[in-house]
Amino acid sequence: MKSTKSKRTTGRLITFEGTEGAGKSTLMAALRAELESRGIEVVSTREPGGVPVAEKIRSVILENSMSPWTELFLYEAARAEHLQAVILPAMARGAWVLCDRFTDSSLAYQGHARGLPWKKVETLNALATEGREPDLVVWLDIDPAAGLRAARDPNRFEAEGVAFQAKVRAGFARARKRRPKHWMKLRAHAAPAEKMASSLAEELMRRFGAKKRKGAR
Amino acid sequence: MKSTKSKRTTGRLITFEGTEGAGKSTLMAALRAELESRGIEVVSTREPGGVPVAEKIRSVILENSMSPWTELFLYEAARAEHLQAVILPAMARGAWVLCDRFTDSSLAYQGHARGLPWKKVETLNALATEGREPDLVVWLDIDPAAGLRAARDPNRFEAEGVAFQAKVRAGFARARKRRPKHWMKLRAHAAPAEKMASSLAEELMRRFGAKKRKGAR
Repeated sequence: MKSTKSKRTTGRLITFEGTEGAGKSTLMAALRAELESRGIEVVSTREPGGVPVAEKIRSVILENSMSPWTELFLYEAARAEHLQAVILPAMARGAWVLCDRFTDSSLAYQGHARGLPWKKVETLNALATEGREPDLVVWLDIDPAAGLRAARDPNRFEAEGVAFQAKVRAGFARARKRRPKHWMKLRAHAAPAEKMASSLAEELMRRFGAKKRKGAR
Repeated sequence: MKSTKSKRTTGRLITFEGTEGAGKSTLMAALRAELESRGIEVVSTREPGGVPVAEKIRSVILENSMSPWTELFLYEAARAEHLQAVILPAMARGAWVLCDRFTDSSLAYQGHARGLPWKKVETLNALATEGREPDLVVWLDIDPAAGLRAARDPNRFEAEGVAFQAKVRAGFARARKRRPKHWMKLRAHAAPAEKMASSLAEELMRRFGAKKRKGAR
């Protein structure tokens, strides 16, 4: 549902990060409904993917083993396309974009967990996104062992086991330190998805929902 | 044919650059035969490709339109994998690697012709190759219009026409200025491929074929 309200707000980019099994997609679906009921135009998408070329790149990543650099370059390729074709146009018309994974996943997975130099990953992230950072990163944190039990369709990252997921989790903690005010850490499955989405929607409306007029507090 | 000689020489990376229709692959095949007859182990390969993941990336590049940044990241992804899986192992055992396109194609196509910042392309090239540069770049230069007439199976780069190929050609001229002593510019189709290959093989043997002993001139 579109409303006149969505035309008055500026677009936002809200990303969802976390290791596997944290329930990102369930929360995102519930959040989308909550925001739409408040008159916000929402575009829900995912990385890598969200556009045909990027979905093809996603298949290459998930179906093959490769060097960490190859993996990183493929994610950045998918990201650059997705940003230009989906995210920026949606934001330009005032939509709020909910994106399942973004630049912080590259920092956590390819940087911290795979051991590629953190600064180089930041450099590639910035090139792929023209320096754009999320307005808010929602980190759904979960114990890696519990997350792997919850993941229904293990991919090759999940197959690397608990130790790898623990490294990725530490990577998210490290990424959060870059921009702590733009991160919100939530405990995964702390409440039913609808309840978490409702609280989150309130928080997002508070942060982004209304423009403050000059002189207003 | 392997010989003891190939074990004494160190591996070399010789890349072949040029716009379409310059006859790179024909020359490379003839050169391979010339070098093998001189007892050199030769590995002949191409970019993007040379290894299954990179061949899949090649398909994504050639079969889809995409932003210049996406294109560049995909080439770097294929390059990183190809380098680790094919080029470095071959060089480590002393082979001479003949590679159809390498980092200078990214400078010429994505940098100069597509207009991505030259320095950024150099940065990505260096990350994908761990800073490795070719021992020799053989540039088969051809008039863009003549090259397009000669290209048998036009891909989407060739479909961009003469003006684009002319920009790429200017990009190669610019790339050559970075390391002029490591470039050899040949006029495409200046002679039959076998004759060009024979002269080129002599030049390569002169440059790389024998280790100079200490004290020898």
